[in-house]
Amino acid sequence: MSSAVLVLSGPSGAGKSTIINAAADSIGDFYFSVSTTTRAPREGEVEGRDYHFVTKEQFEEGIENGDFLEYATVHGNYYGTSLLPVKEALEQGKLVIFDIDVQGHRLVREALGSKVVSAFITPPTLEELEKRLKGRESDSDDVIAKRVANAKIEIEALDEYDFLIINDSIKEAKNAFISIANAARYRMSREENREFTKKWLSQ
Amino acid sequence: MSSAVLVLSGPSGAGKSTIINAAADSIGDFYFSVSTTTRAPREGEVEGRDYHFVTKEQFEEGIENGDFLEYATVHGNYYGTSLLPVKEALEQGKLVIFDIDVQGHRLVREALGSKVVSAFITPPTLEELEKRLKGRESDSDDVIAKRVANAKIEIEALDEYDFLIINDSIKEAKNAFISIANAARYRMSREENREFTKKWLSQ
Repeated sequence: MSSAVLVLSGPSGAGKSTIINAAADSIGDFYFSVSTTTRAPREGEVEGRDYHFVTKEQFEEGIENGDFLEYATVHGNYYGTSLLPVKEALEQGKLVIFDIDVQGHRLVREALGSKVVSAFITPPTLEELEKRLKGRESDSDDVIAKRVANAKIEIEALDEYDFLIINDSIKEAKNAFISIANAARYRMSREENREFTKKWLSQ
Repeated sequence: MSSAVLVLSGPSGAGKSTIINAAADSIGDFYFSVSTTTRAPREGEVEGRDYHFVTKEQFEEGIENGDFLEYATVHGNYYGTSLLPVKEALEQGKLVIFDIDVQGHRLVREALGSKVVSAFITPPTLEELEKRLKGRESDSDDVIAKRVANAKIEIEALDEYDFLIINDSIKEAKNAFISIANAARYRMSREENREFTKKWLSQ
């Protein structure tokens, strides 16, 4: 199977993790890219599943060594994606899935170019997003207000994404995600196109 | 279901019709756009299935009336796509499929912008294409030579397409096409994004 890169963005509370988990058996061999951060783990967060938690010194050493595909600072903490596991997964013909924000999407596009397929996932309305965030009972009112404010900014970047998944019914959102993830296997980088054309003409 | 636009290109002999027919039951409600031409019907071609056959006068009247989404002249004959049935199909939430060449793809992208999803379909090698064209026994050596020469030019436009389907096994090519066609339903035009964002923020 051909390697592929799929970036998923969308507000916290859009159901991204639920959709990925529900679709996991239908999208072939994939690698879910886990970000690295210097912020402290929150309650319930697991090292290696939610994030790789490192110190500021470790992160800055990584930056110097060119270890990061992309990184950014948010509220004084570093967030980034290590290049090596992504490269390895692509070489193994895997679909690499990124769950990153609008800014991360821009940086991954810069780094991986035309290979990237992206989808923005969102509840049908801002009101519904707020309702879902409140229903989770895991976030304080402050955090919810921040997430909602952030969502209002991120939705303005919709045009930068290849696909829009409106998570109204989890079943339809899952099927949309499966179609997009499987289609991504047929997305080629310019280098792959060049290589294919060369072989295609010569044989 | 959301409307969608899918352009398929690729050399004659790539298996486009076979793939579309094999996938027809798995891609929801779709409209296959039939081109209009002034060239004479070839043996076995059926009006309304292969082409709409019209006179030069009728075609030029259509151009004047702005009836065409795109048109071009090839070897002294007009070829074009009527706008009205495409518009109607999109309004009915259908997937509109175009089987057109590289030049037609460019013109449809100009007309329909970011709504367009496109795939290039080809046999694995030029040699294999030639073999298949000879195997069909429907074309003269001259026509085959022309198709092969044309394919060599068209393959250079690969970078303009969103997806590449290598028709090595018809089963895999069919599944690739189904994934891409279903993903296309989640591709939004800028106008749709704007409309969605407005509604999303206000409710």
